[in-house]
Amino acid sequence: MQFLSDNTAKVHPRIWQAMQAADEPDLAYDGDRLTQRLDAAFSDLFGRDCAVLWVATGTAANCLALTTMVQPHGAVVCHREAHIEKDEGGAAGFYLHGAKLLLAEGADARVTPASVSAVLDPIRDDVHQVKAHALSITQANECGCVYRPAELQALGDLARDRGLGFHMDGARFANAVAFLGCSPAEAAGPADALSFGCIKNGAMNAEAIVFFDPALADLARYRRMRAGHLQSKGRYLAAQLLAMLEEDLWLANARAANHAAGLIAAGAGARLLHPVEANEVFCRMSAQERAALRAQGFAFYDWGEDAARFVAGWDSAADHAGKLAEAIGTL
Amino acid sequence: MQFLSDNTAKVHPRIWQAMQAADEPDLAYDGDRLTQRLDAAFSDLFGRDCAVLWVATGTAANCLALTTMVQPHGAVVCHREAHIEKDEGGAAGFYLHGAKLLLAEGADARVTPASVSAVLDPIRDDVHQVKAHALSITQANECGCVYRPAELQALGDLARDRGLGFHMDGARFANAVAFLGCSPAEAAGPADALSFGCIKNGAMNAEAIVFFDPALADLARYRRMRAGHLQSKGRYLAAQLLAMLEEDLWLANARAANHAAGLIAAGAGARLLHPVEANEVFCRMSAQERAALRAQGFAFYDWGEDAARFVAGWDSAADHAGKLAEAIGTL
Amino acid sequence: MQFLSDNTAKVHPRIWQAMQAADEPDLAYDGDRLTQRLDAAFSDLFGRDCAVLWVATGTAANCLALTTMVQPHGAVVCHREAHIEKDEGGAAGFYLHGAKLLLAEGADARVTPASVSAVLDPIRDDVHQVKAHALSITQANECGCVYRPAELQALGDLARDRGLGFHMDGARFANAVAFLGCSPAEAAGPADALSFGCIKNGAMNAEAIVFFDPALADLARYRRMRAGHLQSKGRYLAAQLLAMLEEDLWLANARAANHAAGLIAAGAGARLLHPVEANEVFCRMSAQERAALRAQGFAFYDWGEDAARFVAGWDSAADHAGKLAEAIGTL
Amino acid sequence: MQFLSDNTAKVHPRIWQAMQAADEPDLAYDGDRLTQRLDAAFSDLFGRDCAVLWVATGTAANCLALTTMVQPHGAVVCHREAHIEKDEGGAAGFYLHGAKLLLAEGADARVTPASVSAVLDPIRDDVHQVKAHALSITQANECGCVYRPAELQALGDLARDRGLGFHMDGARFANAVAFLGCSPAEAAGPADALSFGCIKNGAMNAEAIVFFDPALADLARYRRMRAGHLQSKGRYLAAQLLAMLEEDLWLANARAANHAAGLIAAGAGARLLHPVEANEVFCRMSAQERAALRAQGFAFYDWGEDAARFVAGWDSAADHAGKLAEAIGTL
Repeated sequence: MQFLSDNTAKVHPRIWQAMQAADEPDLAYDGDRLTQRLDAAFSDLFGRDCAVLWVATGTAANCLALTTMVQPHGAVVCHREAHIEKDEGGAAGFYLHGAKLLLAEGADARVTPASVSAVLDPIRDDVHQVKAHALSITQANECGCVYRPAELQALGDLARDRGLGFHMDGARFANAVAFLGCSPAEAAGPADALSFGCIKNGAMNAEAIVFFDPALADLARYRRMRAGHLQSKGRYLAAQLLAMLEEDLWLANARAANHAAGLIAAGAGARLLHPVEANEVFCRMSAQERAALRAQGFAFYDWGEDAARFVAGWDSAADHAGKLAEAIGTL
Repeated sequence: MQFLSDNTAKVHPRIWQAMQAADEPDLAYDGDRLTQRLDAAFSDLFGRDCAVLWVATGTAANCLALTTMVQPHGAVVCHREAHIEKDEGGAAGFYLHGAKLLLAEGADARVTPASVSAVLDPIRDDVHQVKAHALSITQANECGCVYRPAELQALGDLARDRGLGFHMDGARFANAVAFLGCSPAEAAGPADALSFGCIKNGAMNAEAIVFFDPALADLARYRRMRAGHLQSKGRYLAAQLLAMLEEDLWLANARAANHAAGLIAAGAGARLLHPVEANEVFCRMSAQERAALRAQGFAFYDWGEDAARFVAGWDSAADHAGKLAEAIGTL
Repeated sequence: MQFLSDNTAKVHPRIWQAMQAADEPDLAYDGDRLTQRLDAAFSDLFGRDCAVLWVATGTAANCLALTTMVQPHGAVVCHREAHIEKDEGGAAGFYLHGAKLLLAEGADARVTPASVSAVLDPIRDDVHQVKAHALSITQANECGCVYRPAELQALGDLARDRGLGFHMDGARFANAVAFLGCSPAEAAGPADALSFGCIKNGAMNAEAIVFFDPALADLARYRRMRAGHLQSKGRYLAAQLLAMLEEDLWLANARAANHAAGLIAAGAGARLLHPVEANEVFCRMSAQERAALRAQGFAFYDWGEDAARFVAGWDSAADHAGKLAEAIGTL
Repeated sequence: MQFLSDNTAKVHPRIWQAMQAADEPDLAYDGDRLTQRLDAAFSDLFGRDCAVLWVATGTAANCLALTTMVQPHGAVVCHREAHIEKDEGGAAGFYLHGAKLLLAEGADARVTPASVSAVLDPIRDDVHQVKAHALSITQANECGCVYRPAELQALGDLARDRGLGFHMDGARFANAVAFLGCSPAEAAGPADALSFGCIKNGAMNAEAIVFFDPALADLARYRRMRAGHLQSKGRYLAAQLLAMLEEDLWLANARAANHAAGLIAAGAGARLLHPVEANEVFCRMSAQERAALRAQGFAFYDWGEDAARFVAGWDSAADHAGKLAEAIGTL
């Protein structure tokens, strides 16, 4: 019973169907008919004009979005636990040509206007100290928590007042929307660009970079090519994204994953390290307890010395999650 | 009848099957069982120890290979028509952090020891002029021509004598092997790293970077992650590569494409701009003639003002190629 | 008798005096009183609003100017013989984060609107080919030749029409003005930024980057710091620049150097490889002839196999130049 | 009475003399006779083979040293307060092509083996997290404190065990040696490269990068040129460095500055934020108190809300320092 990562999940059958339906000769790169439909499909979803680029990884999505906002001599403010800081192999430094990441604090991997200001305020107004050019947050974030629309608005106000671009790493954006029960537009708040994750949510290898300012997309197109991310058979990526939007598959998958995580959370009770608002469950758990769970057939990652992380995927069977909850409850 | 590009071709059925067979939960990134088999599979193919990384595009394959050989203050010698110089959006400059491309001459997009030396010899031995760190050639090259094993040996000797790494862009390596009728090892010559192309040859979105010096691969792994090219569901890429090697599908596909190109070449006769040694046919052809061909249902790209390029894919129907040959013959 | 390079020349006494007059405690970096006077002094010289940054080398001046015009995914068009291409150790690639140099042709190291267009026109309008963001020319150039105001205007028109920034490498700008007999503004033409060279012209280690668009300077200030070129005791650089402008020392020095070069040129006659319009003289000359000159006490550099380069500095004694001319004449 | 910064200080008369003695024609760049003497002079000083490059700023010295140790996908461990992190305008990100700075803790801006290990230990051994390639410390550091030889040995052992290069930012290395009363070699410990600062200590615009592994210097030479830091009249920089070593001027100047700082420290007593081990004095001091001091003619910088920084230069008059001490004592 598999709770290692939503990256270990299978590809959803409707994604397969869409990819196979795309298996006709068509123009290379992003000239095909499916790619041409992306802007309209996402504009419908968000109720405003979007320009959308597909890309094969969340890391590339985050970095290409940021590259439109941050000059090499600038910086991005993000949480100390942000994926771009901790787990992307220094990609931000590469794509941004040495721009810095400035690390903000905040419980449950959430930044706040106060914690962002605590980073920005001490920066002297001279050329010796690096200036922030963008703010990047993760929705749902690295602790499985979700920004509420009012929080997004406050952060967006701050970004605007400070002249910062506003980027949202949405590797698990679908899970955030499923949790909030609001519109995608509300869950994205005033972000300028969103990495709209699909791979952890049932796709194979396509993420969408959604630019709410289409001018940024024109810049990102050059940078995508330059990074070797403009695939020659792009139609198979576009097909995945369109299938994900069709009849809100993205939302259904995220709801299923969140539901499974909710079951686990109920079993975990006081062990929880963070509120469970998406599809990740972080639990205090001794090495002995983890061994006991593994002996019962549960696969998951240690999280530091005294904790475990359980991630539910779109395909996590509810009965597996139920069994896990029960097993945790009886440790 | 489609001769625009081998990138417009469909995905081969055996590639589809392999991808679907990979649709089981497995470890993320490159921890899965299929990826673990790549080194052995390519070592078998080349008859020597290889370390292999998958990646989604030929541009990324070329750049990641070069990044193991070239320091930022160095340069790569390549042909003036090389894909890395002309058609990769400046990716080499990005991945190599500003290293230069030094452009060598040569008929039919082929460099020679003499033309490479003509680039290297005038470089003064001081810090004011940039030094070459690597040589990169394309096999089969941008004019559809193929280096013979003796030519490769001579270039490899030069590279070794000059202290240069030796990279081979093999986006159409399969077509070169099919043409030469030699072993893959002979067609790769003494290259240190080979971008082994699969996408133009029936795969969906997986290329192999084959390192003949495994130490280079360890460096490339960091750079791949840093470039956002380490896909989380890498098993679907590994599956493509393994399927391509199985029962020499790669070679069968390339032979089919080369055969179709040969048919077209026979019809083109004196119009040919370059020998047809792989799956690309470059023909002198007036605008009027091109219009006439298009009116008959043939799709292809203009090549400058007075020429056309026809590319045969693995799925180019021989009868379509035959009709094209006939149509060109009767222009 | 020394004709190796204008870089071997001594520092002019009035530069020494100015530096020593600056030897009072003052604010560090560019906060001192002398640096504060630079904008006004150069605005006077050029008859328009300028923003000026000092920097220690011509390479840094060129690169910092270009960094305000060229994005990492773009390119600079320059002559094949341009100093930024041939003799700056790949600095443009470093400062521009991998942007390309696109090489234009032209006799006597001069680009023309036609030769620049010949570079720009074949670039396809897609993301696969790198776009030019700036044009860079050298005044006086690498062959010792000078652009006339009408030529500058034509190149400036082209740059504007093509959306390119326009940079002038003026390592020997003073020599160009001395030759043209026009105003500095006319010799700079419609350039957006000028590397105003002083070091080859009697200063010790200060060049001026003159931005005719002050907004560009604000960007360059960050990049200068980031490149480690913001000296803490900047007042000694500012002192050099101000002394150079005072009573047109820059022009007097350049006239002296041009005059000496003119004497040599007269002796060289039909041996000249390029018109002598500044302070450099390029002569056809056999190895034997060069040895003969050296035996008479003349120091200079070989220029390829069959030529020699003689450079006159601000301090080249006219009698030495006269003797050299005579010696060449009697070879 | 000036205590703003040692950068506001004047140039020492013997430095002036040496520069003027260098005012003879000589080969450009680093080909001159003075530059040729640097390796021997510093090898004498440190009692071991050194290779030395001059450069105009401490930022360039630090970055060029680090560039020989750190690959773009790597990182440097340094203290959270390190100059390379806080006050060099992001230069490390630029020179290291996006490598990270990993920030270690420690009282008085000192890292310890434990605090460095606390940074290194949690880094997982995979490609998702950036690995450290070097350790950089500052001697004397940003709080005016000095590493003892035993501490250096312990840090050097750690660096060696972890496979890290070891860099020392010695902008105030002379002050550290003056404080320790040991040999320069002991104060440098097992560092691989040292930025040997001269500018804050009476030079005009020359710092030395001392490589204790000469192979690193050969790499740095290319990078210096590429960064536009190879000055064409390098002899005026070499002259400064040689003069600084002659009869231990560097040490005499540092002793004078340290002595002045010691006087101030004595007056500051319980106000001191950090031990005074070099030429900087950090004092708790209210805004009102600072205003009072300024009214008495003392110039210095605020240090946050409730503190002041006083820096003594080589030319700080002891009587000024005494008056300052008295003024602080009677606040």
